[in-house]
Amino acid sequence: MKGLMQDWQLTTNKILEHAKRVNPTREIVTRRVEGNIERITYGDLFDMSKQVSTALKDEGIGLGDRVATLGWNSERHMASWYGAMGIGAVLHTVNPRLHPEQIAWIINHAEDKVLIFDKTFLPIVEQIKDTIPTVKSFVIYAGADTMPENTLGAVPFDIWIDGRSTNVRWGDFPEDTACGLCYTSGTTGDPKGVLYSHRSNVLHTMITMQRDAIGMGANDVVLPVVPMFHANAWGLTFSCPATGANMVMPGAQMDGASIYELLDTEKVTITAAVPTVWLMLLTHLQQNDLKLPHLQKVIIGGSAVPEKILRAFEEDYEVDVVHAWGMTETSPLGTLGTLPPHMVNADIDTRMAQKLKQGRPPFGVELKIVDDEHNDLAWDGETSGRLLVRGPGIAAAYFKGAGGNVLDAEGYFDTGDVANMDEYGTMQITDRAKDVIKSGGEWISSIDIENIAVGHPKVANAAAIGVYHPKWDERPLLIIQPAEGENPTKEEIFAALEGKIAKWWTPDDIAFVDSIPLGATGKINKLALRDTFKDYKLPTA
Amino acid sequence: MKGLMQDWQLTTNKILEHAKRVNPTREIVTRRVEGNIERITYGDLFDMSKQVSTALKDEGIGLGDRVATLGWNSERHMASWYGAMGIGAVLHTVNPRLHPEQIAWIINHAEDKVLIFDKTFLPIVEQIKDTIPTVKSFVIYAGADTMPENTLGAVPFDIWIDGRSTNVRWGDFPEDTACGLCYTSGTTGDPKGVLYSHRSNVLHTMITMQRDAIGMGANDVVLPVVPMFHANAWGLTFSCPATGANMVMPGAQMDGASIYELLDTEKVTITAAVPTVWLMLLTHLQQNDLKLPHLQKVIIGGSAVPEKILRAFEEDYEVDVVHAWGMTETSPLGTLGTLPPHMVNADIDTRMAQKLKQGRPPFGVELKIVDDEHNDLAWDGETSGRLLVRGPGIAAAYFKGAGGNVLDAEGYFDTGDVANMDEYGTMQITDRAKDVIKSGGEWISSIDIENIAVGHPKVANAAAIGVYHPKWDERPLLIIQPAEGENPTKEEIFAALEGKIAKWWTPDDIAFVDSIPLGATGKINKLALRDTFKDYKLPTA
Ligand SMILES: Nc1ncnc2c1ncn2[C@@H]1O[C@H](COP(=O)(O)OP(=O)(O)OP(=O)(O)O)[C@@H](O)[C@H]1O
Ligand SMILES: Nc1ncnc2c1ncn2[C@@H]1O[C@H](COP(=O)(O)OP(=O)(O)OP(=O)(O)O)[C@@H](O)[C@H]1O
Ligand SMILES: [Mg+2]
Ligand SMILES: [Mg+2]
Repeated sequence: MKGLMQDWQLTTNKILEHAKRVNPTREIVTRRVEGNIERITYGDLFDMSKQVSTALKDEGIGLGDRVATLGWNSERHMASWYGAMGIGAVLHTVNPRLHPEQIAWIINHAEDKVLIFDKTFLPIVEQIKDTIPTVKSFVIYAGADTMPENTLGAVPFDIWIDGRSTNVRWGDFPEDTACGLCYTSGTTGDPKGVLYSHRSNVLHTMITMQRDAIGMGANDVVLPVVPMFHANAWGLTFSCPATGANMVMPGAQMDGASIYELLDTEKVTITAAVPTVWLMLLTHLQQNDLKLPHLQKVIIGGSAVPEKILRAFEEDYEVDVVHAWGMTETSPLGTLGTLPPHMVNADIDTRMAQKLKQGRPPFGVELKIVDDEHNDLAWDGETSGRLLVRGPGIAAAYFKGAGGNVLDAEGYFDTGDVANMDEYGTMQITDRAKDVIKSGGEWISSIDIENIAVGHPKVANAAAIGVYHPKWDERPLLIIQPAEGENPTKEEIFAALEGKIAKWWTPDDIAFVDSIPLGATGKINKLALRDTFKDYKLPTA
Repeated sequence: MKGLMQDWQLTTNKILEHAKRVNPTREIVTRRVEGNIERITYGDLFDMSKQVSTALKDEGIGLGDRVATLGWNSERHMASWYGAMGIGAVLHTVNPRLHPEQIAWIINHAEDKVLIFDKTFLPIVEQIKDTIPTVKSFVIYAGADTMPENTLGAVPFDIWIDGRSTNVRWGDFPEDTACGLCYTSGTTGDPKGVLYSHRSNVLHTMITMQRDAIGMGANDVVLPVVPMFHANAWGLTFSCPATGANMVMPGAQMDGASIYELLDTEKVTITAAVPTVWLMLLTHLQQNDLKLPHLQKVIIGGSAVPEKILRAFEEDYEVDVVHAWGMTETSPLGTLGTLPPHMVNADIDTRMAQKLKQGRPPFGVELKIVDDEHNDLAWDGETSGRLLVRGPGIAAAYFKGAGGNVLDAEGYFDTGDVANMDEYGTMQITDRAKDVIKSGGEWISSIDIENIAVGHPKVANAAAIGVYHPKWDERPLLIIQPAEGENPTKEEIFAALEGKIAKWWTPDDIAFVDSIPLGATGKINKLALRDTFKDYKLPTA
C-alpha cells in the first residue's frame, strides 16, 4: 500500500524559490575580482538565475547538457548554478587550480557546451580554447565596462543575461535528473566525475541543515571560503538560500587580510574552508593583534585539522571548530565534529582530542569499516580499515563509468580512506589507502605523524610516506618543510614525536625540503613526494 | 540524464538504525502508567522494536496491514511504531480522547488487525470489543506482573515480545510505502484518515531538524507532551532518534505538577504541547514559585498561543517560545515562529506580536493564500484568504478517498484555515473557514477576538462565533468561561477589547457559560457551541 502524501519532487530550484518567497531581502555579498563589494538579495538572485536559464535556452541548452564554470565564489556564479540546474542542464564546476591540460581534459570528458568564467582565468581559457571543441560559447563574469579583451568571441555575463525573460519554467523533471558535475581533486590519480542529481543535492542540503551538522539559520551570515568548484562549497550554495542565511563571497581574494576584512565588516557568524586558509588567517590575526567577535563557528575539512589551528580558534578566539570529513563523491559532507553529548562537559584536552577526529555521521550518512577481506570491523576507536559509506548523497558510480563498479554488495561506496570508528560513530581518518605505510604487515597512520610534526613551531608542513625497507617492506620517512626562517634539526623533530606515538611508528628518517608540493585543493601531493623519494635509502635499511 | 547517486530509500527504519549506530546510549525516559520511571536506551529501543516486528510477523501482519495503538507517550509505544513500520505495516494511532463510538468507527474504517493499548483505556476497549471485528489480537502495555484482568484474551506487551528474534529485515520496500495512519481531530466534522508514507515522514523529520524549525541536537533532552496520537507528536518520535536527543515521555500524567517534575529532574531543554497544557504548567509554577532553569525552548501549536502564555514563558521564565502551526494533514509541522532576521533585535512588543503569529514555513513547505475565486492574494500582512499548502509532507488525499479531491490544479492542499501572510512568509491564522464570522460580506477574525478576551485575568477561556443577524447576515457573539472564582461583567470584557480591534469587529453581545466545550485534542468545540447558541437573539438584531 502506498502512502497518500504529495509527490513533491526534490529539485534544487525549490531552494531558491523558497529563498525568494520567505527571505527575499537576505543578501549575497561578493568581493568582485575588480576588488569592489557587490550586494544583491535572494530576490535579485532569483531573477538573475531565471535570466541565465533563458540565456541558456536561447543557446539551445536543455536537459542534460553540460554548462561549465571556472569561477570564484560570487553571486554571478550562484546565478549560473541555479539558472542551469533549474532547466535541467548540468552545472559543471571546473577547478581552475588544475593544470590547463587537465582542465582541457576534464572539459572534453564532460563535453561541456558553454563555458562561463572569471576574468582571472582568461589566460587559461585562451591557452586551451583550440583543444575544447565541444564548447560553443564563452561567457565572462563581467559587465560591459569591465570586459577584458579576448580572442574567444566571449560575451560579458551581465550583457548575456540583460533584459532576458524571467518567465521560464523550472524543475519540470524528475528528482533523479542530473544537475551537477564535479571532478575529484586528482590527489590520487586522474580526476573522476561525480554526477549529482537534484535529489542528492536537496537531501544533502537537508542533512547539513541539521543543527549538529552545519545547522545555520536565517539569521546567520555565512562566508564560504571553500570554493564552489570544490565539491559544491560543501553544500553552502544550497543550504544558505534554503535557510535564508546571508552569504559572503570572497571572490578571488582568500589571503588572511582579505578574509579577515570580510569576517569583520560583514559580521560573519559561520565560515568554512580547508586548513591552509585558516593558517593564513590565523597568522594575519596574530601579527595584527586582531579578534573575531562575530564569528561563532568555523567548519574545517578537506584534509585533517592540525591541532594548532584547532586550539587557536577554540582557545584564543572562542570560535567553535567543526572538523568535517567528506569527498566530492559524498556531496561532500560525510561526518562532522560537533561534540557528542558525553563529551560536551569533558575537559579541554578531551574535547580537543575528540575534535581532531573527523566527526560523526549525521542522519542520512551510513558508515562502515572493513578489512582486506571485506569483513566488518569493530567500532572500538582503534581497529582501522577501509572506510565505506552509503546514503542519498553518496555516489553510486562515476561519470561515463570511470572506475567501474564502486559499490560493494550492500551498496556501500569505498572511500579509499582508512579510518577507525568509536562506539558513538566518531570516525578518525588515519590515512588514504593509497598513502598507507605498511610496516611488517601492520599499518602506520601517516596523518597522526604529520599532525604532531606540524604542531612543532619550527615546522611549516610535514608529510610521512612509506619507503622501501628490506626487512619491514616499508618504513616511514618524514618529510619536513621548515617554517620561514627556521632550521629545525632531526633531533628536535624526533623529540616532538617521542611518547606521542607508538615506538614502532617512529619514522626511520627525516628529510628536509624547501617546500612540500600541494595539489589543486591545497592537499599534499603524495604522488609527487613518493616519486621524488622513490630511491631514498633509509639509514636503517 | 539521470544523476549517478545512490538510490537510498527514505524509510523510517533508517532513523532508528542511525540512533542505534551513533547514539546507542542516549535515553528514552518514560513515566509508566503505574507511576514509576523507566529508562531505556536507543540501543534497547532498537532491539525492542525488532522484537515487535517479529511478534507482528508471527501474527501474520505484513506489508500494508494496519496495527492500531491507543497509547500514551512511552518507550513501548515507540517500539510499536518502529516495529510495525519497519516491516511495512501501517501504524495507526487512535486518539483515546475521542468518544468510544468514534474510536470504534475509526478502527473499523481503518480495518485494524491488532490493537495495542495502555491499561488506562481497557474500559474503552472492553466496551467496543464486539463492534470491531477486524481486530484479531489485543496487546496491553504491561508486564506479567502489571497486567490487568480482561475479557479480551489480551497479552501483556512485555510477554508478547519477550524472547522474540531481533533478526528481522526492515525497510525492504519503496519509500512511498504507507507507514502511518492518523485521523484528524474531528473538530469540524468526522475525522478523516491521513496515510503517511515512509518518504513523507523522513522528509518531515529532516525539515523539522533544521535549526530554525525545531532544530534539536544530540545533546538536547526533549519532552513531547504532545501525544504520539496527535499527529505523530509533531514528528518528535522521528526527529529525536534521528538526532540522538534524549526523549522524556510523560505517559498518562500531563498535569502541571507532573510535567514540571519531569522538566526539572530530567533537565529537559525542549518541550512541545498545545496551549492548554502550558496553562496548567504555568499555574503550577506561579503557585509554587518555581523556575525553569534548564528549559530553552517550548514549541506551542495545535491552536493559537494566547499572549499571556507567550509572555509568561519569554519574560518570566526566559524560555524561547516557538509558535507552530500545523495539521494532521501536514505531518504536522507547517510553519514555525522562530524570529526572522529583521526581528531578532526588535523591541519586546514587536517580537511578541511577531510570535503571536503562526510563523514561517521552513524549506520543504510551500504556502499560498487565495480568495473565493481561487486567485492568489498578496502577502501584505493584512489580506486574508484560504490557506493552501504544498510539500513532501503534505497529504494528497484522505484514506479511502474520503473528502474526494483535496488538491488544487497546482497540487496545493486546502487547509480549511483562513490566514494572511506577510512579505517574509509570516503566516497568521485568523480563523478556520468553517468558523469564519462573515459580517456584511466581510470576515471578522474570531481568533483575534478570543486571544484578547483570554488575556483578561478574569477569563479562563473564550470563543467567538457568528450568530444570525437580519441586517449583517452574521455578527460576532463572544462566549466567556470565567476564571475560577471570578465574575467578569460584559463591560469589563468590552473594555478589554476596546481599541485593540476594529470597531465593527466588536461582538454584538457577550454570553457567559460555566465551561466552553473542548474536543479530543483540547481545542474549542465550535460545532457544539454553534449548536447551543443557534437560536441566540442578539440585542442588535
Ligand atoms: N577532515 C579530513 N581529514 C582527513 N582527510 C580528509 C578530510 N576531509 C577530506 N579528506 C580527504 O580528502 C578526500 C576527498 O577529497 P576530494 O574529493 O577533494 O578529492 P581527492 O580524494 O583529494 O582526489 P582524488 O579522489 O581525485 O584522488 C577524502 O577521501 C579524504 O582522503
Ligand atoms: N498555532 C495555531 N494557531 C491556530 N490554529 C492552529 C494552530 N495550529 C493548529 N491549528 C488549527 O488546528 C488545525 C489542525 O488540527 P488537527 O489536524 O489536529 O485536526 P482538526 O483540524 O482540529 O480536526 P478536523 O480536521 O477533523 O476538523 C489547523 O487546521 C488549524 O485550524
Ligand atoms: Mg578521492
Ligand atoms: Mg482539520
